Amino acid sequence: MNIEMIRAAYVRGKGHVRRTPLLSSPFLDEIAGRRVFLKAECLQHTGSFKFRGGWSALSAMNPEQRAKGVIAFSSGNHAQGVALAARMHGTSSVIIMPADAPRVKIENTKALGAEVVLYDRGSQDRDVIGDKLSRERGLTLVKPFDEPLVIAGQGTCGLEIAEQAVEEGIVDADVITCCGGGGLTSGIAMALEADQPGFNVRPAEPEGFDDVARSLRAGAIQRNDAMTGSICDAIITPQPGDLTFPIMKRLCGDGIVVSEHDCLRAMALAFERLRVVIEPGGAVALASALFHGDQLSADTVIVTASGGNVDKPVFERALATLE
Amino acid sequence: MNIEMIRAAYVRGKGHVRRTPLLSSPFLDEIAGRRVFLKAECLQHTGSFKFRGGWSALSAMNPEQRAKGVIAFSSGNHAQGVALAARMHGTSSVIIMPADAPRVKIENTKALGAEVVLYDRGSQDRDVIGDKLSRERGLTLVKPFDEPLVIAGQGTCGLEIAEQAVEEGIVDADVITCCGGGGLTSGIAMALEADQPGFNVRPAEPEGFDDVARSLRAGAIQRNDAMTGSICDAIITPQPGDLTFPIMKRLCGDGIVVSEHDCLRAMALAFERLRVVIEPGGAVALASALFHGDQLSADTVIVTASGGNVDKPVFERALATLE
Repeated sequence: MNIEMIRAAYVRGKGHVRRTPLLSSPFLDEIAGRRVFLKAECLQHTGSFKFRGGWSALSAMNPEQRAKGVIAFSSGNHAQGVALAARMHGTSSVIIMPADAPRVKIENTKALGAEVVLYDRGSQDRDVIGDKLSRERGLTLVKPFDEPLVIAGQGTCGLEIAEQAVEEGIVDADVITCCGGGGLTSGIAMALEADQPGFNVRPAEPEGFDDVARSLRAGAIQRNDAMTGSICDAIITPQPGDLTFPIMKRLCGDGIVVSEHDCLRAMALAFERLRVVIEPGGAVALASALFHGDQLSADTVIVTASGGNVDKPVFERALATLE
Repeated sequence: MNIEMIRAAYVRGKGHVRRTPLLSSPFLDEIAGRRVFLKAECLQHTGSFKFRGGWSALSAMNPEQRAKGVIAFSSGNHAQGVALAARMHGTSSVIIMPADAPRVKIENTKALGAEVVLYDRGSQDRDVIGDKLSRERGLTLVKPFDEPLVIAGQGTCGLEIAEQAVEEGIVDADVITCCGGGGLTSGIAMALEADQPGFNVRPAEPEGFDDVARSLRAGAIQRNDAMTGSICDAIITPQPGDLTFPIMKRLCGDGIVVSEHDCLRAMALAFERLRVVIEPGGAVALASALFHGDQLSADTVIVTASGGNVDKPVFERALATLE
């Protein structure tokens, strides 16, 4: 895993992966007490940065292998990112999803061209199903984060941040990432190490699911106790990845932990001041900048908004936090 | 008024005016039965394309004149666009607003650095107040649309559309604009006449306020009967401008008229599929593409989303249209 892999993914993605805008508002600067820029990955294809990793993996495969199709396990943003990347490459995808996943997510993944295979969480082992399908059909597994090509794809977001910082005249910044398994965080950290080495990358997580913050503090991988029960579901993973954690340990500052209420407030302010839709997990970084500025040091903060796939009832809860 | 003025405004705006993204979703393509691209001016500074015109006007003034400050009449997007453009130029702005304008719009305009002067719609003439202030202080009036420098600024949106169409491989398109006084529409039409002459510009308006569609049909300027009573307030004007109408007459195809309900549905789909916030007036073009495709001819449609400044209750009405 090195910077050249990220640069290669960037070249492969040109014209396919969206260069998402860096947004700002004087009203948010006022709340945060410093300049705030939001890297709007909610505007990426399929509504999250996961398309970058999907595209990177698909575009790097040799054509014969790719033609056989890919497989992924996901009920969320990774599923949609891989499904669309596969379709845009003219190949097929199989997405293994729990049968009790929200119907709209299943329908959306199908609508993006994927074959969705459902399994029962209680009685079936998804890995067994996936292994069998992969062997029978010669499918290639695209892991959600602990995979160099996927990390390289997510890292292209960091190369864009570095470029856009120059365009905006930003010379020093804290960069807060929405952090689940660490694919986006480690990719951005490596990109900035190369192109904006003075920037300080800070992973953000929701309360109760702060495995990365605790792992960084302990210097070794820590697990979450729970795996469900957060509205920030898009960025909930059992623990940081074996590949991503050493990168984060080497390059990132302390983790920042925010409440669900902070996320809802940040979503509402993004609606009102930036006119973008962010999902709860995608709002942890903005919430950190707006409400936990005492943990930051630079006069400028760049936050990623990792995704915008949010159901109406949850978005209405966010709007309800506006006066 | 010519294309060179638009190109000059583009140069003056580089690094200050945001190049807003061109967004798309396979789900919207499916609904429309053709490819749909949304030019997201809701992500422009102050949340609408009006910042382009404000910046163009301010940046073209001679420094001595500019230092005396500018004045504008507006309770909405033009007010905020001019206020921020003035502040970014280090000068002052006076915005004349009706005393019964929503408090949040008054507060926002003040927060962007403007001096807000309120008048009573029943008993006072805003023009008299404006004239007096202008004379006393040497302020320069920035008109909302019937002003060459403002049209030139809005036209920069058209230059970007032309560039982005090339990047996306779009060779033929209908381009639907959200149309009030015609500043944005005429600016875009002139830009595309030069840089994408095959594209067909179509102004969109809400039912009951279709002065441009009727004017184009009649070949002469027609007025609206009412001036209030639409949720699409951001694009309601009495009639097309004396400068903008001849340009639209020469370059635009027929107007398209949509219902308020269509706008609310388009806002909801933009939330769900593009993760952007659009105001009702900013949704007339997308509504045209999604629900009135029988009036279009090309296999690709580019719609402007002119703004995203929408109050929570109206946005909640839009969300309620989602199943």
